[in-house]
Amino acid sequence: MADKPARGLADVVAASTALSDIDGRAGRLSYRGYDIHDLARAATFEEVAYLLQRGSLPDRSELDSYRAELTGGRTLGKRVASAVAEVAASQSPMEALRTLVSLGSADDPDAGSNELAANRRKAARLTAQQPVLVAAYQAARTGSELADPDPSLGVAGNFLLQITGARPDERAVRIFDTCLVLHADHTMNASTFAARVCAATLSDMHSAVVAALATLKGPLHGGANEQVMRGLEQVRTQAGGRGGDAAVDAAERSTRERLARGEKIMGFGHRVYKTEDPRATHLREMSAELGEATGDDTYYRMSRRMEECVLAEKRLHPNVDFYAASVYHYLGIPTDLFTPVFSVSRMAGWTAHIIEQHADNRLIRPDSEYIGKRGQIWVPLEQR
Amino acid sequence: MADKPARGLADVVAASTALSDIDGRAGRLSYRGYDIHDLARAATFEEVAYLLQRGSLPDRSELDSYRAELTGGRTLGKRVASAVAEVAASQSPMEALRTLVSLGSADDPDAGSNELAANRRKAARLTAQQPVLVAAYQAARTGSELADPDPSLGVAGNFLLQITGARPDERAVRIFDTCLVLHADHTMNASTFAARVCAATLSDMHSAVVAALATLKGPLHGGANEQVMRGLEQVRTQAGGRGGDAAVDAAERSTRERLARGEKIMGFGHRVYKTEDPRATHLREMSAELGEATGDDTYYRMSRRMEECVLAEKRLHPNVDFYAASVYHYLGIPTDLFTPVFSVSRMAGWTAHIIEQHADNRLIRPDSEYIGKRGQIWVPLEQR
Repeated sequence: MADKPARGLADVVAASTALSDIDGRAGRLSYRGYDIHDLARAATFEEVAYLLQRGSLPDRSELDSYRAELTGGRTLGKRVASAVAEVAASQSPMEALRTLVSLGSADDPDAGSNELAANRRKAARLTAQQPVLVAAYQAARTGSELADPDPSLGVAGNFLLQITGARPDERAVRIFDTCLVLHADHTMNASTFAARVCAATLSDMHSAVVAALATLKGPLHGGANEQVMRGLEQVRTQAGGRGGDAAVDAAERSTRERLARGEKIMGFGHRVYKTEDPRATHLREMSAELGEATGDDTYYRMSRRMEECVLAEKRLHPNVDFYAASVYHYLGIPTDLFTPVFSVSRMAGWTAHIIEQHADNRLIRPDSEYIGKRGQIWVPLEQR
Repeated sequence: MADKPARGLADVVAASTALSDIDGRAGRLSYRGYDIHDLARAATFEEVAYLLQRGSLPDRSELDSYRAELTGGRTLGKRVASAVAEVAASQSPMEALRTLVSLGSADDPDAGSNELAANRRKAARLTAQQPVLVAAYQAARTGSELADPDPSLGVAGNFLLQITGARPDERAVRIFDTCLVLHADHTMNASTFAARVCAATLSDMHSAVVAALATLKGPLHGGANEQVMRGLEQVRTQAGGRGGDAAVDAAERSTRERLARGEKIMGFGHRVYKTEDPRATHLREMSAELGEATGDDTYYRMSRRMEECVLAEKRLHPNVDFYAASVYHYLGIPTDLFTPVFSVSRMAGWTAHIIEQHADNRLIRPDSEYIGKRGQIWVPLEQR
């Protein structure tokens, strides 16, 4: 047995990857060597998913054929489609996705294979299916009809169409597409790491994605953006609900009080970034733009004031979850679907990591430090 | 970023635990300080599950009340019960368990809570439910009626009753109970580690168990005992099917040929044990006993000959999977349910690890080493 445990494996290198890289001191993130700022400004989610899953940026013909795969994958499989209503009636969003993706292997002709070609097809199908599952869940629980997918729209536009039931404007599509790009991959975050631990037993892609979904469900991981939004909503309501300066001032007061009580403010700080998370830069801009466009910039301004406050008092920067909350809200996404939306994007990264793990595999089986009693003497039941 | 990665986190201490401890050099395993040999000889699975999940060996009244919890938990929830047939018709055993346990949170009144008391109740329910799920799956796919549970039987006896449809004899119950004891926990094996990575996001117990099931499904982990059995069956069939010396000699020849070709023999070697796995000692004895009792000791003798051969040529010892294969076969368990049977037992350990993780939590978020391209220049689609 080796040394003392690094609590939570902090700073322990658990795997090698060519997918994404973080420089936490400089606040840099890249996917396969492309800076996240370039991708956020110029790439579509489809290009990024292709880059991650297949290794390089697609040319026109590769992109067209990948898009066709994704468009074809928007039709839910027979078994999944027939289970959505029942599952939506009895499970919370992340529970439901965990169940439906698990069931989904029954509809996938490649479920049993870990071959590269099969894994690539499954990666595209799972990436195509995830936003439709989220929208189908929302339609089922609200008793509304799921809007037909629109093949002229990409993943971002089609998701907004299906989740809101209304055709999104160009700004909304562009901004949500950028959100998907920003959340697509992030080295060994907990859900991705869970997917790799699973895949490293040579378990299949659906299994590893289910493990990732189960892990993303946790409030310390995927749940953070939802909690940020609930905090904003609560403070705004307590301030009278009408927004504007009263809500912005209330956000500052509440943040100061919570910091004084030693409470954690959701959406700030990150184990890896020691400066601003480069994704937060874009999400802040988009929150401002949507606040202005929708004519109610209260949530943006509340967020901005909280950011100033936490930075001044704790030297903590907002992470990816903080401004994602108001952005998703402005886009009309129900708050309890923020984590499912995270999964829509991260599906690109998870599946790419599973492909990478299968390509050069070793079982991930760490050691543990035993801290319990030793040398216990067995006592028969009658003598206890 | 830290040092070079330890491939597969070998020898990296990922967590502290008071549940089980392995001394790989001495070939020792203990649960909460009790030597596995004492437990294998004297403890029931119920006592071991209680020991792991609740912290100490139960006295008579604690054991009675825990047994009552388990007996009560044998009735499948409404939603799970109504989904079994459809899932069994379309998914392989481990896929089906992954789906059904995920769906099962809908039937569990404590699904939303990570409190200790709720986690303990869920741990008992999941431990009670898992063998019934496996038997219900088997009944559904064979079109037979699931035998009613018998409250006079413990977990081991009731499982054998429900999976075979026949009341098991005392020897079978005793031996299968010992199998459950031997497989109940094993430090940071891949599925347990996946459960802890999941639980460390403060995701819930069902999620963490689903992650564990998804991980156990992999042929490098839970699948090994099934592959051992398929190997034995194949060699016996090739040797004419009748068993006896011809099959035993064929097992030796086949093993030597495979070793000469540099192939891995399933069921041998372990990342942690450098000498005999103490669980293998008991499984070997039970395989011999069942071989004699059933009047066909061919699989036991084939296994024994293979063991001698691999030890002589490679200095590798059988691990827990090797003799488990013939034992489960002798007990009448279908070969493709060996991994599900593993999960019946390991559920005790998984749930105990989830409770332990929640009690003193830190997010498990390792680093990674970036090995991809750097400084890639963005090129617009039209110029690619």
